[in-house]
Amino acid sequence: MKKHNFSAGPCILPQEVFKEASQAILDFNNSGLSILEISHRSADFVSVMDEAQSLALELLDLKDKGYKALFLQGGASTQFLMIAYNLLEKKAAYLNTGTWSSKAIKEAKLFGEIVEVASSKDKNFNYIPKSYSIPDDVDYFHCTSNNTIFGTQMKEFPTTSKPLVCDMSSDIFSRTLDFSKFDIIYAGAQKNMGPAGTTLVIVKEDILGKVSREIPSMMSYSTHISKDSMFNTPAVYAVYVSMLTLRWIKAKGGIKAMEELNNKKADLLYSEIDRNPLFKGFAAREDRSAMNATFNLTDESHKETFDKMWKGAGVNGLNGHRSVGGYRASMYNALSLESVQVVVDLMQDLEKKVK
Amino acid sequence: MKKHNFSAGPCILPQEVFKEASQAILDFNNSGLSILEISHRSADFVSVMDEAQSLALELLDLKDKGYKALFLQGGASTQFLMIAYNLLEKKAAYLNTGTWSSKAIKEAKLFGEIVEVASSKDKNFNYIPKSYSIPDDVDYFHCTSNNTIFGTQMKEFPTTSKPLVCDMSSDIFSRTLDFSKFDIIYAGAQKNMGPAGTTLVIVKEDILGKVSREIPSMMSYSTHISKDSMFNTPAVYAVYVSMLTLRWIKAKGGIKAMEELNNKKADLLYSEIDRNPLFKGFAAREDRSAMNATFNLTDESHKETFDKMWKGAGVNGLNGHRSVGGYRASMYNALSLESVQVVVDLMQDLEKKVK
Repeated sequence: MKKHNFSAGPCILPQEVFKEASQAILDFNNSGLSILEISHRSADFVSVMDEAQSLALELLDLKDKGYKALFLQGGASTQFLMIAYNLLEKKAAYLNTGTWSSKAIKEAKLFGEIVEVASSKDKNFNYIPKSYSIPDDVDYFHCTSNNTIFGTQMKEFPTTSKPLVCDMSSDIFSRTLDFSKFDIIYAGAQKNMGPAGTTLVIVKEDILGKVSREIPSMMSYSTHISKDSMFNTPAVYAVYVSMLTLRWIKAKGGIKAMEELNNKKADLLYSEIDRNPLFKGFAAREDRSAMNATFNLTDESHKETFDKMWKGAGVNGLNGHRSVGGYRASMYNALSLESVQVVVDLMQDLEKKVK
Repeated sequence: MKKHNFSAGPCILPQEVFKEASQAILDFNNSGLSILEISHRSADFVSVMDEAQSLALELLDLKDKGYKALFLQGGASTQFLMIAYNLLEKKAAYLNTGTWSSKAIKEAKLFGEIVEVASSKDKNFNYIPKSYSIPDDVDYFHCTSNNTIFGTQMKEFPTTSKPLVCDMSSDIFSRTLDFSKFDIIYAGAQKNMGPAGTTLVIVKEDILGKVSREIPSMMSYSTHISKDSMFNTPAVYAVYVSMLTLRWIKAKGGIKAMEELNNKKADLLYSEIDRNPLFKGFAAREDRSAMNATFNLTDESHKETFDKMWKGAGVNGLNGHRSVGGYRASMYNALSLESVQVVVDLMQDLEKKVK
């Protein structure tokens, strides 16, 4: 049975990528060797790393604009720490839009004073705060572009003279933005870019070197930049599969094409959530994420029936996060419109059944 | 042509593992989903993580002895930092046996005073220092069991009342030792355990909690222990392939069986190095590594000929590291005796050719 994978992350990647990624385990580039057994210093892998970095910058339209792309380890959780290590001298401003922002704030507090400019915690993070100001005396401003758990997404970003740092783990490469507004963009690979195990960090080089502390080698962006992400052995396979996925995005028409399809999928599902009396959306309408749609049953007594229906139809990963309950449909780049239609049909079938 | 992979790391893994690892990219556990697209919180993956941790402890005979096995990200280079973050209050003792020890010392110095109890730097690290004493007032003693670059290996470990911390990146699971002498053992996966991208850390729990500093979440062993290596998204695929390799080691007879084969391979190659007048070993005889044999030509003028010979015979990764020059044959667990015989034959062919 065809699977419809709505998992929040790690999540669906293109089938074409899986095919090539599987073959490379047996024989990479007709070398007679597996990609898992070759040196990261081999010409074959160095060219993978170069292409991955180059594609990331190209797709974000950041080539020749003073940015470096790094593929590091440790996930966004390690970036919470590295951001502070590299940029936080005295004080930084954070926007708190959910679990990940809160974790970023917690780690940064070990390094300096944190001003939480606004928070949507008062309503279980179901919206994005909009009227806040960024103090003049901060080292940087940090925000989370998309909140996987709560299903909210920042549609606009503040204009500020301070370095703008953004965790785009769950919506990078999914929509067009003026990425040159940002000074650091970071993203765990395991949504729109590749398998778990590598983290893309895009750094505008001129913001580095301004803190007085000594930074441990592995925590320092400058170390990794000086060694082109090869200061130590990188996560070879995760970088390789990310490169394949970035190639796929480019071949499909780049971020613009992804955005068009993502908007279609989101419109289809949110329209049904709004139309169908059995369901209600969780996030504030204007802040709804095109990546993660969070919704609940209006009458919880239908839960068992609906769960049986979608599980029986080959749908995977539709359960909501425990902080929100209900359902979460994660509709990353590789998910087809057809898969969303399957869920919409199931929602309509439930409505008919219940009547 | 059959490949003989002597790469220093990432390196050869068992062919059986590649086969299963390749299949799981297309369909994991008959789920209809790729292992790259499933949630790390899914029952299927949680059981992979559990089995990997359990096998690691079992193979090292450390079950029910107060140890935890963690699969983290960031390589041994991140452990250089984490060791100091978690254990170094004032002073620590390090044995310097090469590039990796030196890097570990450099990172630890940011956190406290480091006593280098001995170093073999005077002879380009071609031996393991033996007569040294560990001061009474240190928080721990750190050493590197095997030095990939220089081809030396510690055959004995000091007896000390201080916590014993060891970087076993390049020889873990390759030989029997009383592993319960150690308080922390860490190893980047990419030698005997799996692909690059995950790091095994075995921690004796009762040595934690003794430093006064606040430790960032991702740097804290206690954080990772409390979440069974799932504080954040782990390197799913690297952990999975490590589990397959650990299963393979167990099926083959455990570490004891690996050690027997590794000794045979090392004996075969070192005998030829000592016998053949065209070659000389780099490392001191009593400290020779069974994992990485370093050797040079006695007459460099044969280099072009010999390089052509082994490259033409399907041998991969025999070039020495630039710090030593010459050749390095890395003979990890998955390398067959047959592959070593191929190199020995080539060395003998060169001898005949030159005569």
